[in-house]
Amino acid sequence: MSDFTDSKQQWENTLFSSIVEMARAADGDFAVLGQLAAASGDPESLQIVIDRLSQQPQGKKAFASYFSLGAIDLEELHRLPTETLGYLYAEHMLSNQLKPLQADLATNDHQFFAAHITETHDVWHVLTGSTTDILGEIQLEAFYVAQLEASRFWLALLTKNLMKSVVYDIDVATDYMEVMTNGWLMGRKAEPLFGINWSTLWTKHLEEIRVSLNIDIAL
Amino acid sequence: MSDFTDSKQQWENTLFSSIVEMARAADGDFAVLGQLAAASGDPESLQIVIDRLSQQPQGKKAFASYFSLGAIDLEELHRLPTETLGYLYAEHMLSNQLKPLQADLATNDHQFFAAHITETHDVWHVLTGSTTDILGEIQLEAFYVAQLEASRFWLALLTKNLMKSVVYDIDVATDYMEVMTNGWLMGRKAEPLFGINWSTLWTKHLEEIRVSLNIDIAL
Repeated sequence: MSDFTDSKQQWENTLFSSIVEMARAADGDFAVLGQLAAASGDPESLQIVIDRLSQQPQGKKAFASYFSLGAIDLEELHRLPTETLGYLYAEHMLSNQLKPLQADLATNDHQFFAAHITETHDVWHVLTGSTTDILGEIQLEAFYVAQLEASRFWLALLTKNLMKSVVYDIDVATDYMEVMTNGWLMGRKAEPLFGINWSTLWTKHLEEIRVSLNIDIAL
Repeated sequence: MSDFTDSKQQWENTLFSSIVEMARAADGDFAVLGQLAAASGDPESLQIVIDRLSQQPQGKKAFASYFSLGAIDLEELHRLPTETLGYLYAEHMLSNQLKPLQADLATNDHQFFAAHITETHDVWHVLTGSTTDILGEIQLEAFYVAQLEASRFWLALLTKNLMKSVVYDIDVATDYMEVMTNGWLMGRKAEPLFGINWSTLWTKHLEEIRVSLNIDIAL
């Protein structure tokens, strides 16, 4: 067996194990999530995702600028009118006791991709009307698979959730399939969200943003 | 650790391994499929599926009679008009070089469930317009999950297919998600197919049967 074949098989084994370990872990276990992110974040598939996102002007512009949302003051956003993205994002963060995730400044495409996905994750929760429980997470995972196309990480998360249902709780299968379908259809129908600078949109009404991006949460 | 906990964990481990082994195997490997069927066919979850199917008159009647489609003469069915279920089923079987799967006569609910699902599988392929390639199989798997609700086996098959895409070929993710969504929506919308005696319907037009059962293959 060549070294190349050997290391490819090792990588496949690691990825299989990461998915199973994630399925064995409790929902929200961030240590195993990190392992899965590492195992599923191979440069080749990441490059395919980046290339596809860059085919749209918005994605191309984002990769040309490596912008960041900047520091976010939740208290300040929470003083905006209650229909605004800023207020609703702050409300989502504060009521779930979450802090804005800030990534280091990016110096290459892969870093920017990871940083942007990380810092916009909770904005996507709000935009898609996805709750922070497991049903909301599954809906949002399917939305990511639709929007990012060839993303090993997000499809791995969907896979582990179906696997959890198979092994531990088959009674949730229908609910899981339902929200996965909703997230997928919503993500296919919506305009691309990747590359939008949400910090310029805090004062806009959430519903208007949804309409302009074709995000149909009633699916 | 009690014997019960011990054997439960062993069963979970076997089920995890079966799904991964199935993901590692080539599409259509029937030996590993048998292992997965055994691992996912625990009496408890099977009983839940059977109880739910029995809540509908058609399912209840089926479990009361343990009927079988009987011997199927493909050459004879192939002489029926080309729009009929019988002709189209025979055409599907002959062109894919398949033989009708016949199960032993059932003497209890679990045996009947397995026998009926087995002998009607290719009829469901025809009814749902699902091809015999991997995309058609995924569509039909999702259709089964929708129709049988708490089925470990069919959800395990969907899971292993998503897992295959994650590890071996992320480029097929969009196609897999698309057909899974179609199968799921079709299965939720359609009347229950379980318990129908297709051998009484060979001479009916396929399109009329689809309409009467609300099977919408254009989804």
